[in-house]
Amino acid sequence: MLNFIYWNPVQVVFGHNSITELPKLVPDKAKILMTYGTGSIKKNGVYEQVTQALKGYNLIEFGGIEPNPFYETCLKAVDVCKREKVDFLLAVGGGSVLDATKFIAAAVPFQDGEPWNILSGKAQVTQALPLGAVMTIPATGSEMNCLAVISRAETQEKLHFGTPAVYPKFSVIDPAVTFSLPKKQLVNGIVDAFVHVLEQYVTYPVITPLQDRQAEAILHTIIESAPSVLADRMDYNARANFVWCATQALNGHLSCGVVPDFSTHMIGHELTAFFGLDHAQTLAIVLFGVWQHQIHNKAAKLAQYAERVWGITSGSDLEKAELAIEKTEDFFNAIGMATRLRDYNIGEDGIDKVVKRFIERNITLGENKNITAKEVKEILSSRL
Amino acid sequence: MLNFIYWNPVQVVFGHNSITELPKLVPDKAKILMTYGTGSIKKNGVYEQVTQALKGYNLIEFGGIEPNPFYETCLKAVDVCKREKVDFLLAVGGGSVLDATKFIAAAVPFQDGEPWNILSGKAQVTQALPLGAVMTIPATGSEMNCLAVISRAETQEKLHFGTPAVYPKFSVIDPAVTFSLPKKQLVNGIVDAFVHVLEQYVTYPVITPLQDRQAEAILHTIIESAPSVLADRMDYNARANFVWCATQALNGHLSCGVVPDFSTHMIGHELTAFFGLDHAQTLAIVLFGVWQHQIHNKAAKLAQYAERVWGITSGSDLEKAELAIEKTEDFFNAIGMATRLRDYNIGEDGIDKVVKRFIERNITLGENKNITAKEVKEILSSRL
Repeated sequence: MLNFIYWNPVQVVFGHNSITELPKLVPDKAKILMTYGTGSIKKNGVYEQVTQALKGYNLIEFGGIEPNPFYETCLKAVDVCKREKVDFLLAVGGGSVLDATKFIAAAVPFQDGEPWNILSGKAQVTQALPLGAVMTIPATGSEMNCLAVISRAETQEKLHFGTPAVYPKFSVIDPAVTFSLPKKQLVNGIVDAFVHVLEQYVTYPVITPLQDRQAEAILHTIIESAPSVLADRMDYNARANFVWCATQALNGHLSCGVVPDFSTHMIGHELTAFFGLDHAQTLAIVLFGVWQHQIHNKAAKLAQYAERVWGITSGSDLEKAELAIEKTEDFFNAIGMATRLRDYNIGEDGIDKVVKRFIERNITLGENKNITAKEVKEILSSRL
Repeated sequence: MLNFIYWNPVQVVFGHNSITELPKLVPDKAKILMTYGTGSIKKNGVYEQVTQALKGYNLIEFGGIEPNPFYETCLKAVDVCKREKVDFLLAVGGGSVLDATKFIAAAVPFQDGEPWNILSGKAQVTQALPLGAVMTIPATGSEMNCLAVISRAETQEKLHFGTPAVYPKFSVIDPAVTFSLPKKQLVNGIVDAFVHVLEQYVTYPVITPLQDRQAEAILHTIIESAPSVLADRMDYNARANFVWCATQALNGHLSCGVVPDFSTHMIGHELTAFFGLDHAQTLAIVLFGVWQHQIHNKAAKLAQYAERVWGITSGSDLEKAELAIEKTEDFFNAIGMATRLRDYNIGEDGIDKVVKRFIERNITLGENKNITAKEVKEILSSRL
């Protein structure tokens, strides 16, 4: 096991009707900016529940945060915060609203040039406005981590940042508010959470049996709950179990002492930046390319995954690994997730655009730091 | 799944040589009281490592905290804190030192009568001195929770309290410092951690597949690592994996949304209070009494435990449950842990003493609140 530091101070308030707990969580005298997306919370009753719970609080609103939230939109919210002297942010929505709100929180007190520096890595963030969240889409895990991904329309970039300063003070998670989500978003959420776990698990072994089993626990539970989540949209327990999986898939505990590989995310972000694919759609394409490309390096962990999660017990490690890749792609396809670039009409030209960016950035990806622009091209070419 | 609130703000700094990180963790200008036990840290190098790391800090010491720490001892430390205007506590030791330090932290600013009220439940604790920990014995999980158990010599009582105010700000966990522990303490630690998990897992099902698998992950890993932990006392990975299991066994995440049953702990505490048994020794006696007594209520979960942890796949739920109980007791015996009252020369008289206390307290235990003094007598009588 590698040395690690684990710190996650988010207070999770989980369960049916938990939005009514907001008055115990939000600071009494704060000037609150409630951030939200493009309007679904006004249709599914969440807006009503939140504003009802916070009646009498000094609350103003900023709606219209889009999926894969834009830097440009966030800057407008930063202006509102400064003008209105906001001192607490309440994100009500899915990963996009939460990510945007974390960025807004960091950008308000930011003094070190243009706020894009927070994302480009040119500046370190050490302070942020305090924020809380009401989570409405099980997928990204943003409700219990200190990460955020922001896109810039102007330059077609999608970058992430992370700092303990943007951990939500609390996250209210009521699985019942997710009942109204369309199937597409549930499928996205299942794939997103599943891939989060795999990226922390399928690398090379460093003798972490507990972390491995904790990863497998989430994978098993997602596979098991997915049919009910998709078929019976009012099954509270199936939904609650899946939601808790998604939150725990990227809250840091699976990464303790292991070597993660977030190359699928990094390559996937470029597919969103250039072609507007949903985040989970990009993961479902790229993951299998990365795995096939790195199958020899990942064979031991892929074989363990094959055995323990898919019950594949015969064959060499490599044969098990191949079967595990097939099983995982079958699982994604079976729940309605496409896994090829051609499904989105992206061809060689599109791949070249992405590869060019990795040439410009000159970064290496993967747990062995062996994925450069050349390998990105090979990986994506295998996913046409 | 039941509704729940989860909040655990402890920063865990885990790994070899992690004590050297202390200067980044301890507040710069604090007047620190370093608390420790009866001297083992002076033999195994931990005292040296800590004082070396904190050279130049304003550090005073309070040693001599005994196993199952006494209220009377804690009060002496409270006096030191007040006299010396201590504003940060650093616990260096195992669960006893950590628990004592949490109590001291709560008792220093306590104004509501005698500090025993914190334990008797007569008063609520809302503030405490900040504290950090250097953990040296994998067992109680105290390094990552807000619980503490304190004994009172004068009245032969052993009571617990818990409040978010006494979460350690950080816990430094270097598995290598546990190499010098005697076998008895390792056996105690294995049993303590194992029972912590079981008490949150073997109750009645409320559809929590993820939490169940997370519990099983720890149980599997403890069973798997125990032989190496006990046989090869310098095997870092085995030790690190076991240590991480012990910390996670009682850090709150297994209790999310489930119904726990801490009756084994509650009955066990009385065996320590009256007869001085080690905490884990009491758990290893009482657990099987509680399970046999409540086997019909716990059959579903015991059968699941039998199947998934011990590979028992045939028979009725009740038959599987019986076998699981047998397997668990065999496991404890095999690593050298006694599981009967007679092993400590405790007979009917001793049982009566314990039962009398439950009559006086008039409390009911267990996930079904069906264990009164009468059932405590039946449970203990089955463990003679």
